[in-house]
Amino acid sequence: ITFRSVEKEDIDMIFSLLQQLTEIDYSSRNKDNCWDRFTSNNSSNSIVGLYKNKVVAYGSVVIENKIRGEIAGHIEDIVVDKDMRGKNIGVNLINELIKIAQKKECYRVTLLCNESLANFYYKNGFKINGIAMKKFIK
Amino acid sequence: ITFRSVEKEDIDMIFSLLQQLTEIDYSSRNKDNCWDRFTSNNSSNSIVGLYKNKVVAYGSVVIENKIRGEIAGHIEDIVVDKDMRGKNIGVNLINELIKIAQKKECYRVTLLCNESLANFYYKNGFKINGIAMKKFIK
Repeated sequence: ITFRSVEKEDIDMIFSLLQQLTEIDYSSRNKDNCWDRFTSNNSSNSIVGLYKNKVVAYGSVVIENKIRGEIAGHIEDIVVDKDMRGKNIGVNLINELIKIAQKKECYRVTLLCNESLANFYYKNGFKINGIAMKKFIK
Repeated sequence: ITFRSVEKEDIDMIFSLLQQLTEIDYSSRNKDNCWDRFTSNNSSNSIVGLYKNKVVAYGSVVIENKIRGEIAGHIEDIVVDKDMRGKNIGVNLINELIKIAQKKECYRVTLLCNESLANFYYKNGFKINGIAMKKFIK
């Protein structure tokens, strides 16, 4: 598996991959618009994992500059192709995102997840730190 | 209480307020540098709550553009002055941040918190949605 920054040409494969996480159908979205909006906010740093020229993993780390000077990273949208799980790709993906966060001088990285994934994130040194709360507003 | 966007002149009072949340001493930080870094990343939208010209509340919502076109909000760094708690200021603060997230077209807002704060966030319509995990990297 090779990891690199996301490029526009990856978007079809990323859409297919993220479709594995949800029942909402994204296939009719205008991908040019999605890409333009995505890249207009440069706080998202996203990478793909490639295997035989196919995108088999995707993940993002959002960089936040806090008013007191700290920089924090937020890991978002982690996915590994269902046919490629159990091969440590997820651990390597998270590790790559942590490296990006370190380059951006983040002091910490956080993520929200289902409790069943805690054991997975322990492998990358994450610890449980409270609860996640969500509100839909649209 | 009046809420408005954060301004550079607020920074001393915000530092004092955020100091209530931690034992780490931030008083020696260069506030000009902090402000420049903070405003260089325009994905943070932060507000203050004012009472008699004093900053008594602070909070931030980080706007994330996702690759599939959704926009997500992340609520961060919520604080109400310890002498002003129990007056519903926190609920109003969160409500103001939700309004910002709505203007920015976020479909949802998430936050990480200690389990003991769940009842507080219920008042603004948040629901528990899994766990928060953290890794310090610096």
